Order: sequence, then C-alpha cells, then structure tokens
Amino acid sequence: MRIVIIGGVAAGPKAASKIIRLNPEAEVTIVEKDKYLSYAGCGLPYYVSGEVKEQKELMCTPVGVVRDPVFFQKVKNVRVLTETEALEIDRKGKRVLVRKMQEGVGEWLSYDKLVLATGSDPVVPPLPGKELKNVYTLHGVHDAEGIKAFLQGEQAKDVVIVGGGLIGVEITEALTHRGCRVTIVEKMPQIFGMLDWDLAKLVMQHMEAHGVKILVDTEVQAFQGEGEVREVLTNKGVLPAEMVIIAVGVKPQVALAKAAGLKIGATGAIKVDERQCTSDPDIYAAGDCVECRDLVSGKNIHMPMGSTANKQGRVAANNICGVQDAFPGVLGSVICKVFDYSVARTGLTEKTARELKYDVVTAYAPGPDRAHFMPTAKPLFLKLVVDKKNRQLLGAQAAGPGDADKRMDVSVLALSNHMTVDQLANMDLCYAPPYSPAMDNIITAANVARNKLDGYLESVSAAEVKAMLEEQKDFVFLDVRSPAEYEEIRLPKAILIPLGALRGRLQELPKDKPVVAFCKISLRGYEAALVLKAAGFKDVKVMDGGIAMWPYEKEQ
Amino acid sequence: MRIVIIGGVAAGPKAASKIIRLNPEAEVTIVEKDKYLSYAGCGLPYYVSGEVKEQKELMCTPVGVVRDPVFFQKVKNVRVLTETEALEIDRKGKRVLVRKMQEGVGEWLSYDKLVLATGSDPVVPPLPGKELKNVYTLHGVHDAEGIKAFLQGEQAKDVVIVGGGLIGVEITEALTHRGCRVTIVEKMPQIFGMLDWDLAKLVMQHMEAHGVKILVDTEVQAFQGEGEVREVLTNKGVLPAEMVIIAVGVKPQVALAKAAGLKIGATGAIKVDERQCTSDPDIYAAGDCVECRDLVSGKNIHMPMGSTANKQGRVAANNICGVQDAFPGVLGSVICKVFDYSVARTGLTEKTARELKYDVVTAYAPGPDRAHFMPTAKPLFLKLVVDKKNRQLLGAQAAGPGDADKRMDVSVLALSNHMTVDQLANMDLCYAPPYSPAMDNIITAANVARNKLDGYLESVSAAEVKAMLEEQKDFVFLDVRSPAEYEEIRLPKAILIPLGALRGRLQELPKDKPVVAFCKISLRGYEAALVLKAAGFKDVKVMDGGIAMWPYEKEQ
Repeated sequence: MRIVIIGGVAAGPKAASKIIRLNPEAEVTIVEKDKYLSYAGCGLPYYVSGEVKEQKELMCTPVGVVRDPVFFQKVKNVRVLTETEALEIDRKGKRVLVRKMQEGVGEWLSYDKLVLATGSDPVVPPLPGKELKNVYTLHGVHDAEGIKAFLQGEQAKDVVIVGGGLIGVEITEALTHRGCRVTIVEKMPQIFGMLDWDLAKLVMQHMEAHGVKILVDTEVQAFQGEGEVREVLTNKGVLPAEMVIIAVGVKPQVALAKAAGLKIGATGAIKVDERQCTSDPDIYAAGDCVECRDLVSGKNIHMPMGSTANKQGRVAANNICGVQDAFPGVLGSVICKVFDYSVARTGLTEKTARELKYDVVTAYAPGPDRAHFMPTAKPLFLKLVVDKKNRQLLGAQAAGPGDADKRMDVSVLALSNHMTVDQLANMDLCYAPPYSPAMDNIITAANVARNKLDGYLESVSAAEVKAMLEEQKDFVFLDVRSPAEYEEIRLPKAILIPLGALRGRLQELPKDKPVVAFCKISLRGYEAALVLKAAGFKDVKVMDGGIAMWPYEKEQ
Repeated sequence: MRIVIIGGVAAGPKAASKIIRLNPEAEVTIVEKDKYLSYAGCGLPYYVSGEVKEQKELMCTPVGVVRDPVFFQKVKNVRVLTETEALEIDRKGKRVLVRKMQEGVGEWLSYDKLVLATGSDPVVPPLPGKELKNVYTLHGVHDAEGIKAFLQGEQAKDVVIVGGGLIGVEITEALTHRGCRVTIVEKMPQIFGMLDWDLAKLVMQHMEAHGVKILVDTEVQAFQGEGEVREVLTNKGVLPAEMVIIAVGVKPQVALAKAAGLKIGATGAIKVDERQCTSDPDIYAAGDCVECRDLVSGKNIHMPMGSTANKQGRVAANNICGVQDAFPGVLGSVICKVFDYSVARTGLTEKTARELKYDVVTAYAPGPDRAHFMPTAKPLFLKLVVDKKNRQLLGAQAAGPGDADKRMDVSVLALSNHMTVDQLANMDLCYAPPYSPAMDNIITAANVARNKLDGYLESVSAAEVKAMLEEQKDFVFLDVRSPAEYEEIRLPKAILIPLGALRGRLQELPKDKPVVAFCKISLRGYEAALVLKAAGFKDVKVMDGGIAMWPYEKEQ
C-alpha cells in the first residue's frame, strides 16, 4: 500500500506514524514544502520569549531526538521529502505531482490513499506597506527566527500587534517579556473574541496592568516607513512601530483540494466525514485544512488546533488501514497563558448561545482555586452558560491566576456528555486543600446555575448595573461586605451594610425601591437578598460575580 | 419548621445554611460537642506543617470571618450549641436529648426534621501504651494543637506514624517539613492501599528519597515509655519514638443512630437513600457517618471525605425543604500532596477490579505533563484500568511531580458518564504548551488502552518482568533507548539497540526467543515490537510504563 501525505507539521507525521504501526509494509511518503517538519508550532511564542531556549527543542521528541527526515526514515520507516511542493492531484490516475523547490523538475508520486494535511496560512490583509521590513506574521519557524533576530539586533521599543486573538495575545506576552512596548490594535470592541465581553474585559485589565496598550474598535489602514516599518496608521491615529506582527487569524490551505474538485465546506475548509475522508474515498484530510463539527451547536466550524490535528491524523490513519474510527468533533476548547492569568473557554459563549437562540442562564463563580486557607490559593473567575430548557451545560469560560485548565477540561467532558448542571454539581472530584476547595469552583458554579434555574437567585449582570448607574436609576446598590473590605475597594454609589448586621438594620432600607445586593463574590450578596425577600422586600436582585468580576472602574 | 442538626463540622453547617436559604422562617439548631465548629479538618496537616499559620484560618470564611456561633446567629440565623452533646433520639416524640457538656442537666430539643452529621472517629487499636503522653491521632483541632505544642516545646527527633493511608502520609509530610525523622509502620505490604501496588511503590520511593522510613508488613504491638512514649514495639523490632500518631483509619460515628434503631449498612455506616434520608423519614444523615454508593461497582462503601459531606449536606437540605434532589454516589476519588508528588486516584484499582471479577486491561502512560519543550513540564505517571468487555474506563491513578489533579478530575467525569477509552481519546481538551502536551496525558493513556484492546500492543507488567529476571528465564530484554539515556540509567540484564538502529541490526536478535522491549515510557518500545513482529519475531511484548515506571532498583 502506497500512502502519500501532503504536509509534515502535525496531522501529517501523526498519520504517517500510525499507518506504519498498523501496517509496517506500507510505503509512506510525506511531502513538506518547508525545510522543517514535525515542529511544535504552538511553541513558537515561547521560543520568541526565550522560555524555550533552542529552535531544535520544538522539533525534538521528548527524549531530545530531532524529528528530521533521517529520523523518520530510520525510526519510523517513513520517507520524507522536505522543501518539496505538491503541485497537483490527479485523482483519476491516483497520483500527486511534486517538485523539489529549488529544482525545476516535477515528479509524479502514485498513491493508494492520499492524506491532505496542508494546514493553514496566516491571513494578511492587503494593507499598504505590508511588505515593509519587520512586518511579520507568526506562523512558522522562519517567522520566529526573524522576530528573534530583530529583537537581538537592537533594543526593540515599540511593537504593534494587529489582532487580539490567541496568537496576538501570546506573542504580546512574549514580546513584553523581551522588554518591548506592545500595542494591540483590534477592530472589534474587545480582544479575545472567543470569550464573552465581561471575561475578556478582566483579561484586558490584567494585560494593561502589565503595560500592554490595547486599542479596540480600531482599524489598521497602512504600515508606513522607508524600507523598514516605522509607523502604523489607524483610523484613530498613528502609532510608532519598529516591528509589526499581523495576527488576524488563519485560513485553511485548500488550494490543492479545490483544484482537484474536492468538496469545500461553507467555512472555506475541506469537508470530511467522521472518518476524516474527503468527498473522494481515496483522499483523507486532517488538521488545520479541514472543518469539523461543533459538538454543542452541531454546526461545522473551522477551529485549527494542534491537539485536534493529532487526533484527526490518528483517525485518518486508522480508517486508511481498515480500522474503524471516528472523530466526533470539537468544542472550540482554547487555553492561553496571559502573564499571571490563565484564560480558557470551551463550548458556546453566552453571546454565541444567544445568537443561536438558546434560552440561557449564566452562572458566575469567582473564588480561590484551592482551599482558601492555603497560601498557594489563587483567584479564579468562572462563567458557565446553561440551557434553561434542559439544564445542560452549553459552555464555560475561565480567567484568573488560579487553575483554569482543570475546570475547563472538566467542562469539556461535561459538555461532551451533555451533562446537566445538577449532575455536574455532584461529581466526585478529587479534593484536598492543596488542589481545590471542598466544593470545587466548577461545582459552586453549577450550584449557582441551579439556584438561578430554580428561581432562588435572581440576578442582574454587571453591565446592567453599570447602565442603571449611568441612567441614574433610583435603586439601592447594597454592598454587604465587611467594613475592612469596603475600605480597601468600593463600587460607585454602593452603600455598605455588612451581612451580619443586615437583619438588625432592615429599617434603613426603603422597601419600595429595587435593591441590587453584592459582596466580593456575591455569595453573601445572595444571602442578603434572601434575608431581604423574607423581610418583605419585593424587588431584590444579586449582582452576578460580585465585585471580583466587576469589569469597570472601582474606587480605592 | 424546626430542624435540629447534630454535628457542626462540614455536612451539618452546610445543611443548616442551605435550609435557611430555602426557608428563612425555619428554626435551625446545630448541636456540636466540640468547642469549635465548621472547621476545615482536611487542613489540619497544613496547620501542623506551618503552611497554614493560624488555627483561626481553618475556621474562617474566605474573607476572614470566623464561623463561630455568633457568626451563625447573625449571618445565617442559625442557633449553634457548642460543647453540647446529643445523648438520645426520641423518634416517636421527635425530639433529641442534649446536654451542655460541663453542666449536668439535659434538655429536649423538638424537631420536625433531624439531620445526623455526626462524622467519624479515628480508630485507635487497643494496644498497650496507647494512653501514653505524645501518642496522638489527627482528627480534630485539639490533636493538631497538641502535636504543634509538642513540636515547639522541644526539637522532635523521632516520630512513628502508625498507618500509611491518606492521613498518615499527609502528616508524615508535615512532620518531615518540621524537621522530624519520621517512620511509617504499615501492616500491609504497601502504603496507600487505595493505589495499586506499582503506583504505590513509586510514591514510596519518592518518600524514601525525602528521608521517610517506611516499614511495610510490620505490625505495632505496643507503645512503651514512662508517662511519655519513648519506643514503639513492632513484630520486627523496636523503634525509637518521641511522638506517635495513630492513623489507621476512621470509623463512622453511629452510636446515636444505632441506639435509635436506624438502619446501619454492612459497612458500619448509616444507611441512607439517594435523598440522604435514613430509615426514618424524618431523619436525614450526611457526611462521614453515612455510607454511599460506589458509582462503578454499585456496592455501598464508606468513603469519608469533606467534599462529599458538603454535597450531601446540600442534598439533605433540599429534600428537607421539599426540593427534590439526589446524591448519586462516589468514585472514591482521592488526592494527596506527598512532597514534590501529587498522588491521586478515582474509580477502581486494578486489584479491586480483578477482585470484582472484571476482565481488565491496564494502560500506563508516563510522560511530561505539558509540552515537553516547556521548562515547566514535569513527569506524570498515569495508569488506567479499563473493562475489556465494553471498553469503558473503570478507574484511574496518577502520581508524580506533574499535574495529576486535572487528569484525575477528567477521569472522574469519564467514569461518571461510563465513557469508553475510545470516546475519552477524542475529547477536545484545552491545549496550549504551558498546560498540556498536544495529546494530553489522559488521551495518550486512553490510546495505549485502545492499542491493547485492539491487539496491537501486547504487554507485560514490570512485576512479571522482574519475576522472569529472578527466575532466570531465557528471553531478550531489549532496551531501545539512546546510548545517552542508557548511560544514565539502566535495567538489569537489558541489552541496548536504539530504535533507530533496530531495523539494521535485526540479525543480532534470536527469532526463537521471547523478546520484551522497552524504552523510557515504552512508546519506542511499542514501535520496536512492531518492527520485530513485522520481521517475523513471534513472541514480542512491550513492558508497561517503560523504565519511567519500573518500580524496582535501577543501575546507575
């Protein structure tokens, strides 16, 4: 059996290794247009930051062997053609035309099965000056080397990142570590479009505290300079820039597939079935070049991730070798380190869920990520999105210095199994003080959702409160924290009655006015609301997330 | 509605708070025999170690308010009677006889619903000398204060811990941090009976490397000394001991329930239904005093955990207030910090699964807990137990310096949802290099299990190899790592042929002898086995877990 694999970064080498394991007699050839293969693209920001010392480490096996063509030949019995371009697929003849890039002559490789692992390309908008020196994308090893060389050559002072998505934020952190002054220019009203606005706002505040300048609602119009970039022109003014990194997203690399007449999905990526098979039964595709099913909404999305590429490469290999296997889909799970914060999400955001016409309840749970008395405990801000109809989890988001990845991966399994928040709240998660509170954060979040679904907790979002304050609505904004907490930090116009004193001071509050209660995390706020309701107050709500997740200015 | 709750540590206060939230008019009384209530018992080892500085912190809310009777009265509207003993339940009259402990007079408290949250007591074997000074258990704040006072009073040199379970190990770590020389005496062949032997062995080696002496298969016969303990007499000799901590387990406190004629389960704990209701419809029970269902085996077990107590307290409160709620059961999830290791488990061990007659496959996955090129990556040793019949996960164990809790909590959800390893392997877990490898450890472990279930990977355990070596069986013990790795550390009698050289050196190996291949983590070992099988070798197996999880002596 002859297998040709086009693409040698993640899905391609994974498929090759698995095919050889299942069928040692197979003749497997990987065609890769770059000099490098099987490198960890997701590690590039950490190579730029210096955390990863050598480029080689991104291309090594865990025991330090470089995954070069010799390695693939000797260890895996896989032939690798680097710096070789695939030019054309002849589906009838079942062959691929390839050409060594420096040389001019093409060669046809015959296949029984073909795997497309062509990956994605960075989107570069057609802006004037994009060809100037020191205008980069961060997509491959060459980009990272270029950026590093520039940083070494002279003290970089001003860098503009175009786009506040995942890669834009990761490289922002790396460059800030390297001493640069970084400005992110984002055309949308928030960076991290994968998060709801309120969580994104907390992350933006954290980045700003680390010296990053973030310009939202701002569009880049041109890069300016003589030979080298010097300025970025936006609709809101000019920014100094000795380096620019364009990180406005990637698009699937589908030119070959399209030319060969394979079906392309509405997302622009190659359409595959659960077996990773394209519309041609002898051609499989995996990784950044394909679209996959969103497990919550059922819609097809393009969600390029190294983790998905590896799984899909394995599924394609199994099916090619006659072993039944199916890739179910993705949840759009994402995690990102942003200075001292971990930021993560999975499933649907509140925004997306509402756009898809779900009737949703949201639950906010800020709190320490382990037993609060442990000195290692750190704050974590959690938000769940829940389907009111069936009480199932729809999505989860987390941000903060605390352990976000554990709670998100737990949410991934809850989503994949269509669990209700009632089920989630009783999971027997591992507990010891150095690892979690006795009631884990995700369990508390699930319980907050249950309290809302059952009508015990009526809430109002921070954004709604902010609007009420701005419109000078007549309501009682009731802070039930302690005087010490109040002294440290306050919300505008809030009056303080500590929860412990509330029962004795009810007569200070007008029963006919709406009340919005809160505390640090709105647990005491919830208890205060119950006390007020029991005392005959009619319109009492709790502010979601408390002062911990208030995304606006606070008074100090 | 009058509610009486007996027990004020975890389940009791949780039930009280929730009842008041659901029904602010309820008259709730907590009866607690100790002076302290609502303290974090699981935090005691960290108070002894000094990580938690003040006793008060264990009794505070996350914002630093001490949960004393005044707090409960003012904030929660719950009456608390401390240092008050419940002596008798009059089920017909629906009342409880209580007595303030220093005073002599009893008082009957009437109830509409009663909650038993009586907790558990440490087991103290009837050994001679157990009443000597400085012989402790670690069950309450008083014990911790006693131990701390002793450590302050004079430089403790020799401490003997009786029992190598969770609490024994936690206090061992705490006392080692405090400069003590600690010996654990365990009557079973391993400490950490909740783990399989091979994982426990790795943990024991780690503890020994931190100076802890561990005596297994050893029984304590007496404590000796004049007034104060000086020695521990065992069946294997005498150990010096200036302090002894007995940590051989806890037993549910069921005296009141028993005397009242409530049903007690085979485990010795109170029998409750899913609603946490006892055999009396007006009496509920929650926490360490009840038994619960093991979600994998379906059997009832006694698994006292603070996390479970909190959940059950909430479920009891809901049902008392007429809100339907059910506690499904537990998985025996446990986690523990042991010096630089995290040690965790959930579901069935291999040993328990085999005792319960499951046909099991085990999968070992040692490896870095995040992208191997990240300087923050640390090793983690994972073991999965899988049901051969339906490919469902039965249990998971983890140990090592790496992030164990995340992988165990993911396993908790996989177990709770009866997931197969095939489903687990395709979960869209959050990936970025600072958080996990592209293929998360748990996904790799699931794939190892799949390779075994599908017959691609034939394995042999380290224990079986050890036996083969000791019986001088005639087989090839094939190390396929690199020369550099071999130079650093080796297994006895293994011969080295690096994987990359194997295809060219096949003639050095006899085709008629059994071969056991391995590498650091047995991935290359697996590839080597496939190469040998393809070349006509008939009897080729891979050693589970590689050299990383070899629990015996290595050659350096």
